[in-house]
Amino acid sequence: MAIFFKMNAKEAPAISQILKLAQKFNNFYLNGFQSNEYLPFVIDGHQVGLIKPEVKKHLLSYPDIFTFQVNNTVHLNPSFHTYEARSKCLDQVLRELRTKNVFVALKGWRDECYEVRTRYTSEPLMKMERSATCLFGICNYGVDINGYIRHPEKGICIWLQKRSSTKQTWPGKWDNMVGGGLSTGYGVLETAFKEAEEEASVPSVLMTNLTPCGSVSFFFESERGLFPNTEFVFDLELPLNFEPKNKDGEVETFELLTVEDVLSRIQTPEFKTTSAPVVLDFLIRHGLISTENERHLPEIIELLHVPLQTMYRFDSSTPAIENGRS
Amino acid sequence: MAIFFKMNAKEAPAISQILKLAQKFNNFYLNGFQSNEYLPFVIDGHQVGLIKPEVKKHLLSYPDIFTFQVNNTVHLNPSFHTYEARSKCLDQVLRELRTKNVFVALKGWRDECYEVRTRYTSEPLMKMERSATCLFGICNYGVDINGYIRHPEKGICIWLQKRSSTKQTWPGKWDNMVGGGLSTGYGVLETAFKEAEEEASVPSVLMTNLTPCGSVSFFFESERGLFPNTEFVFDLELPLNFEPKNKDGEVETFELLTVEDVLSRIQTPEFKTTSAPVVLDFLIRHGLISTENERHLPEIIELLHVPLQTMYRFDSSTPAIENGRS
Repeated sequence: MAIFFKMNAKEAPAISQILKLAQKFNNFYLNGFQSNEYLPFVIDGHQVGLIKPEVKKHLLSYPDIFTFQVNNTVHLNPSFHTYEARSKCLDQVLRELRTKNVFVALKGWRDECYEVRTRYTSEPLMKMERSATCLFGICNYGVDINGYIRHPEKGICIWLQKRSSTKQTWPGKWDNMVGGGLSTGYGVLETAFKEAEEEASVPSVLMTNLTPCGSVSFFFESERGLFPNTEFVFDLELPLNFEPKNKDGEVETFELLTVEDVLSRIQTPEFKTTSAPVVLDFLIRHGLISTENERHLPEIIELLHVPLQTMYRFDSSTPAIENGRS
Repeated sequence: MAIFFKMNAKEAPAISQILKLAQKFNNFYLNGFQSNEYLPFVIDGHQVGLIKPEVKKHLLSYPDIFTFQVNNTVHLNPSFHTYEARSKCLDQVLRELRTKNVFVALKGWRDECYEVRTRYTSEPLMKMERSATCLFGICNYGVDINGYIRHPEKGICIWLQKRSSTKQTWPGKWDNMVGGGLSTGYGVLETAFKEAEEEASVPSVLMTNLTPCGSVSFFFESERGLFPNTEFVFDLELPLNFEPKNKDGEVETFELLTVEDVLSRIQTPEFKTTSAPVVLDFLIRHGLISTENERHLPEIIELLHVPLQTMYRFDSSTPAIENGRS
């Protein structure tokens, strides 16, 4: 049976807290992205990212690797013309920048790579150390699992994880039950199964319930850099007596929360901002946030699916440049 | 249990048929909207629509009602400064244009009004005859119900309706089980209940299963005009033995289809193009279209949620004009 969350639309403030949250995890989409201050990063004629002026400053020290064009674009030197050559030269630059200690982002070095491409279906042009992709505004892809139960009295309750205090990013923050980035060589479903096992010890018999439910996309900026993120979302209904247990040391604890408590928690600074879209999408798909309690619903839903796949439009045949958009 | 649709990602063609369909119902968003040929339509300083040059030509005959500015915007004369006054004067113009027989769109006159506003949460500035809103690119809102069953052997099966051959728009085309526009004075949930009763005779006891699942947004153009549409979507799981029956004469017949047959049908010219987004969203949310069978999934999902709520940005304080975008 459908459950409508209780707050009445008429009681909602002019700009709802949920809309504010959707604007927060799209702080770059709604602000920096609309400006002309960021430089398209181009490989082999295709835009794959955006570079901040502060980052460009440091790349100027590598004129053999990066070329800076009058139209304000940064190109990877075309003499690196294979996936391997590009990946290797960037890796050397990034390792040097890491020792120079100029970027906060590189303090979280992962020794794990992400593919670099214009959009999800494009051929990867190179791979890049995960922690560095935010310096270049490379599109990131990840997987998130909404683990939940249908409690006989409390209705839908959702499992959240508290990230370990030793994680490189968002240490000690609350997060979805299971989540992970799509590293080179791993598929979407494969990553979902791997992370469910490592992070929450979900037995394979329960994983037969795993249902893909689409994706969310948003463009966040932090002090580390730019995060154009697409998260593939999965729902996993669990038995009432299941309790997630961490194996890989990346989770401090798990907690089962009512919808009302989840809604409060995602609005606190204790929740990882870039995981909130997955929770909101879950609550909307299950009728727990609807026009009956949230009058900004259409705008919030659009902010959960911003057009990242078509935003990097500069290519070498484009004469003028408009910060990657046309 | 999750059901993965069978086609393998590797068998999928370079641009999938589903991506092509998503581009088709966004033919204006991806083409005309990116050009500078359309003129913002402004009321009381707020952009509420876009006008084609062919439409502007006819509005030039009403210089007391529409003013045409050097920055290529069309303004409703500010001397009409109340909701009622604006609604009344536009109604007179539209009735005259209807008798002149210059617009195909007005042949489908409905005697039913839509609210005119910048975005869903903005105060309505006037109301306008439904069939005319596409001449001004006014944002439309509607409600759609996915009526479905869980068949013990065939899995999820979906009820579709065939529209009556006497309907003003898309006569004789296949459509979602229940759907309707949000007329002035009606709420979202209220419209869902009203249409479920009138179009499919769903008994109220079954309506307790109705679950709001968010919305889709897309921007379509036809020979009639511009359709920036937001549809609030509801899922309604039905008992195996339920059969929808039409009451209001707007439906010719209903048919229960397997997922595979629905996927085929929505790609034929026999299906109402602007109802396909609701079906695709349903199939994605239920795991029937996923990265396992559709590699363009993220792009398709973004095309199901294009940013209509923030696209009409011209306001009188904006000095330059960029076809409603900034």
